[in-house]
Amino acid sequence: MRILDPKKALVVLSGGQDSTTCLFWALREFSLVKSITFDYGQRHRIELESAAAVAKEAGIANRCIQLSGLSELGGSALIGEEEVSGEILGDGLPNSFVPGRNLIFLSYAAAYAYQEDMKHIVLGACETDFSGYPDCRADTLGRAIEALSLGMEADFEIHTPLMSLTKAESVLLAKEVGAFKALQFTHTCYNGVRPPCGHCPACLLRAKGFQEAGEEDPLL
Amino acid sequence: MRILDPKKALVVLSGGQDSTTCLFWALREFSLVKSITFDYGQRHRIELESAAAVAKEAGIANRCIQLSGLSELGGSALIGEEEVSGEILGDGLPNSFVPGRNLIFLSYAAAYAYQEDMKHIVLGACETDFSGYPDCRADTLGRAIEALSLGMEADFEIHTPLMSLTKAESVLLAKEVGAFKALQFTHTCYNGVRPPCGHCPACLLRAKGFQEAGEEDPLL
Repeated sequence: MRILDPKKALVVLSGGQDSTTCLFWALREFSLVKSITFDYGQRHRIELESAAAVAKEAGIANRCIQLSGLSELGGSALIGEEEVSGEILGDGLPNSFVPGRNLIFLSYAAAYAYQEDMKHIVLGACETDFSGYPDCRADTLGRAIEALSLGMEADFEIHTPLMSLTKAESVLLAKEVGAFKALQFTHTCYNGVRPPCGHCPACLLRAKGFQEAGEEDPLL
Repeated sequence: MRILDPKKALVVLSGGQDSTTCLFWALREFSLVKSITFDYGQRHRIELESAAAVAKEAGIANRCIQLSGLSELGGSALIGEEEVSGEILGDGLPNSFVPGRNLIFLSYAAAYAYQEDMKHIVLGACETDFSGYPDCRADTLGRAIEALSLGMEADFEIHTPLMSLTKAESVLLAKEVGAFKALQFTHTCYNGVRPPCGHCPACLLRAKGFQEAGEEDPLL
């Protein structure tokens, strides 16, 4: 069993509101923080610029990994041409679902964390999220980190500080950990436009969170 | 929960002896079999040609997925310039170890199987293998498939027919399932040469297996 450095944390940074909040949470909790971003051929590539801008604002090193294989697998509006509607498909999942995407991200993150001697992996996953991705749930991620710890004989620990928070509570956490300034660089809109479209499910959810928290979105 | 087609199996095919044996085992067990191969910048790229030749011999469709991100992570002789010695490093793992590689492969395989409605995923992993990769062990892979099943809400089943076999027993299984002819196309040598170098740990192990089984290697 390899004992990884408990002062070091790797944040999976998408460039969105949640992972940005987690990055600043990690900066409060751990003494050395890095982030990892995945370029998987997503249609909203503005996310990658957002992730880089957030990392720069936070003063941390961000590593962007090319995952060409994910787009080759196809099968989702997030990597296709179709407009993302949040529509629920026959299998009960929104059409933006890339099956297993977060598990692939987590596997890469763990492989990278292992090489960088980082014990903690931080994800912005949230069970209360409208999108209902099963690979964002605590039981899924807990099982996955067990598999990764066994598979690398390392003592990883996963952190999902937003898992049980409402969007309003996430906004308040973002304020508490000093993420607000960086939130201006984040990107949420499923249709990949800036300024955000304002009508996709992701935009509506973000707006609702800020409204309920009684805060103004620094992005707008 | 999505009920996947129990007649369909996806084999992770590296182009080596073990995965080729598993492919023919799957052809005996299931009525529709496909394979998936990963191009992750491995130094022994002859594996990819071997996988294609084996799939052709078996008459099945093989999908090759580019995993550029894995070589970006670096850190292993199998994707570097260094000769692979089988030397055990300070952490007790051979220097050909790409941390978490099999878990990344399995995640992609499951994402692909999901989209192709295939319930069964077949891997050539083997606990008795000399290389001692922790991501080849039954407990690791069992935990990983649980995570993937939860994460995609699908009823995957993983099969590792070689898990507890000696190399000699693998050779006998290969004969039993009719894999011998295809074994001539396989590639085992860690140094990526054809004919095989004959002195790396992988070549020696393969030779020992055939010798103990009292069979001649179709590759030689």
